[in-house]
Amino acid sequence: MDLKLYDLAGAKDDCRFSPPCWQVKMALKHKGLDAQEIPWRFTEKEAIAFSGQGKVPVLVDGDNTIVDSWEIVRYLETAYADHPSLFGGQASESGALFMKFWCVQTITPIILRIILLDLFQHLHEKDKAYFRESREKFLGMTLEEFATPDDATITALRTALSPLREVLKRQPYLGGDSPYFADYIVFAPFQWARAVSPIQLLAKDDLIYAWRERLLDAFDGYARNSFGYST
Amino acid sequence: MDLKLYDLAGAKDDCRFSPPCWQVKMALKHKGLDAQEIPWRFTEKEAIAFSGQGKVPVLVDGDNTIVDSWEIVRYLETAYADHPSLFGGQASESGALFMKFWCVQTITPIILRIILLDLFQHLHEKDKAYFRESREKFLGMTLEEFATPDDATITALRTALSPLREVLKRQPYLGGDSPYFADYIVFAPFQWARAVSPIQLLAKDDLIYAWRERLLDAFDGYARNSFGYST
Repeated sequence: MDLKLYDLAGAKDDCRFSPPCWQVKMALKHKGLDAQEIPWRFTEKEAIAFSGQGKVPVLVDGDNTIVDSWEIVRYLETAYADHPSLFGGQASESGALFMKFWCVQTITPIILRIILLDLFQHLHEKDKAYFRESREKFLGMTLEEFATPDDATITALRTALSPLREVLKRQPYLGGDSPYFADYIVFAPFQWARAVSPIQLLAKDDLIYAWRERLLDAFDGYARNSFGYST
Repeated sequence: MDLKLYDLAGAKDDCRFSPPCWQVKMALKHKGLDAQEIPWRFTEKEAIAFSGQGKVPVLVDGDNTIVDSWEIVRYLETAYADHPSLFGGQASESGALFMKFWCVQTITPIILRIILLDLFQHLHEKDKAYFRESREKFLGMTLEEFATPDDATITALRTALSPLREVLKRQPYLGGDSPYFADYIVFAPFQWARAVSPIQLLAKDDLIYAWRERLLDAFDGYARNSFGYST
């Protein structure tokens, strides 16, 4: 196998929660590609020093090393152009780019408030001090002050997801009849939550729940078979 | 000329502010089509009764009558398939659909708070009672209570537009090197504001301001030449 993906892991090797890594993993499956998924922890900077930076995902494809989830996916689209397209054209690639920022700025912060304490519990012991220090500096408060895993935050999440729900009233995926990369972008933070938290983010009668079920089942249940809570 | 578009107008015939109508008008220009733009007021229900409903835009193309901005644009894409595409494929059509709901649920309500009182002043006298009654019922408060044309609301708008700004850091249009229908979707509420309000929504050094300028200039200045305030 030529493809290697450095993938964030928790205390357990099979607890894989990083949303950008999930974006890339679903994109690889969409392309029909298998990669060796190498567990990596926040503090293992030396293990990916060859990439010139300190974050995952890092994709190694033979002699090529690519970092940043968006750049990795663009690389896959070009390098494997004869495999199923993740975008289908420049305008839909742009639509996915918008979705990426919508997700990061609107959805991810709310899910973080819900799952943060569960996420912290699942980290490898050697990562906990690094995680607490870096995140508390970024957030400007303690993890415990930021976390609000309550009904109000879950309601806020369901409200914020409303534009996605409207699209899913009309079609099964953001991509139409089949998923494209924008689907994986929004699916990724749900996998982040699923890997570490038993809290139910979506009502079972929500169209977004059914959409997530379909993506859990995609590629022979690739995402469903990953370590996680059944929510 | 075969195409007719019923287009919402204010007290002055050339004050055209409806965002869904602006979406359709920019889509028509993108397709290289000219339509007769017929001014219409909220209370002129009988004038569009032939369409089976009471809202604009209504497009008449020979024997075809199409209502709802999204359906009109889908019609144009199909009926004028040999003209420049508004989408470029199903995935990017889906991206535009998401953008439509993001815009309606996130951007439009904030702009409404900023421009509502200016908008009301620009309505035709015969529409004012209808507008006040229907909107106050919908909003659950008076127009004056809902409107907050202050710095805090403008700041909230600029923050809410952040995912768009991130895309425009990387490319000149949502569509990439050239606009597609999603660009017109987000442009439309700016035309709504421009037609009725002198309030400056965007800072001049904002990438979104420059993007709006490009769209004002598109199609020989079609949107810039429309009645409106220079903001």
